[in-house]
Amino acid sequence: MEKSVSSSVIKRLPRYYRYLGELLSLGIERISSKELSQRMGITASQIRQDLNCFGGFGQQGYGYNVEYLYGEIAKILGLDFKYKAILVGVGNIGHALTQNTNFEKRGFNLVGIFDTDPQKIGMKIQNLTVLDYKEIKSFIEAECPTMAILSVPRAVANQVANELYDMGIKAFLNFSYAELAKRDDVVVENIHLGDSLMRLCYKISEKNKDEV
Amino acid sequence: MEKSVSSSVIKRLPRYYRYLGELLSLGIERISSKELSQRMGITASQIRQDLNCFGGFGQQGYGYNVEYLYGEIAKILGLDFKYKAILVGVGNIGHALTQNTNFEKRGFNLVGIFDTDPQKIGMKIQNLTVLDYKEIKSFIEAECPTMAILSVPRAVANQVANELYDMGIKAFLNFSYAELAKRDDVVVENIHLGDSLMRLCYKISEKNKDEV
Repeated sequence: MEKSVSSSVIKRLPRYYRYLGELLSLGIERISSKELSQRMGITASQIRQDLNCFGGFGQQGYGYNVEYLYGEIAKILGLDFKYKAILVGVGNIGHALTQNTNFEKRGFNLVGIFDTDPQKIGMKIQNLTVLDYKEIKSFIEAECPTMAILSVPRAVANQVANELYDMGIKAFLNFSYAELAKRDDVVVENIHLGDSLMRLCYKISEKNKDEV
Repeated sequence: MEKSVSSSVIKRLPRYYRYLGELLSLGIERISSKELSQRMGITASQIRQDLNCFGGFGQQGYGYNVEYLYGEIAKILGLDFKYKAILVGVGNIGHALTQNTNFEKRGFNLVGIFDTDPQKIGMKIQNLTVLDYKEIKSFIEAECPTMAILSVPRAVANQVANELYDMGIKAFLNFSYAELAKRDDVVVENIHLGDSLMRLCYKISEKNKDEV
């Protein structure tokens, strides 16, 4: 596979994956870039260009084999690895994630949930029991999770991230609103709800200008 | 202002805004692109390029005036408008948003919260009372909100979005995991936690390849 696929292509891959999954569940075996384009609201040439980054799986006049493409994108995204993940901080976001997300379908296996609040420790969430954050070191040594979902308060986010880093965690899904310190051997995906609000604000303002 | 600023620049603007806000609160009056670069983990040339898109507010040898730049980015993002927003669907995400987000700082004024669940209707969230979704039409006619935060279950997301669209809402912050039908006169910002998991999975897989 080519290196240095642009981050905007990567951003779109999960959407392709979801759409192809829906097509599969509808029993659709093949699809043209044009049809996919209409469904996804992306231009057909953009789709061909995106998928070409990964070697291009389409055939002229036939289109894409949905199941094959679905499987290939899963491989590209690494979804078949099922990396072990832990969740640190059981707030509303933690609950929303555990209740609505099929982790396994997204490449992860949630193996532990931690909090410092005695009222939350011992709670059952899905098939897991919330553990005391004090136990996290021995848990990580035993289970070797790859990734931590950080949904702790902003004020302690970097401290917790540093502790987890020292225990061997090198990947974070960061909900904490704090910017984590940059490290070359760490990958981070930030979800910043406030930034999303600001981007939407920008889009509204731009649209209003167009209409004036 | 130039039109057609790239979406990746727009994506970074909220981060600039937050950093500049932190500098301001620390009493820092000016900053070079180099210093900003070190703090943000973005190259200095990228910063200059980004800010040039909006007319460039830096001066050689002086750097950027933090307060001025902060104000200009707020204007570009449209944060001074304080668009009226409503929240539809009081689940975990709705709670997380209302508890942790300063809407006013992000360009919005949250004026109404709606649900269909009798157990949630009447609840107090911040300074608002959760209203019955049945009342939303008259509420929208009276208050004319610009934006709706959609945190309803995926299965009803498009139906609710259609209803709100017919009532005049043309901007959505979409947490529902459903893809909203495309419309030319509607702006949408999607937050898809599952997609974020997949992107992180990709980053981990790529990093592992590099290390092999």
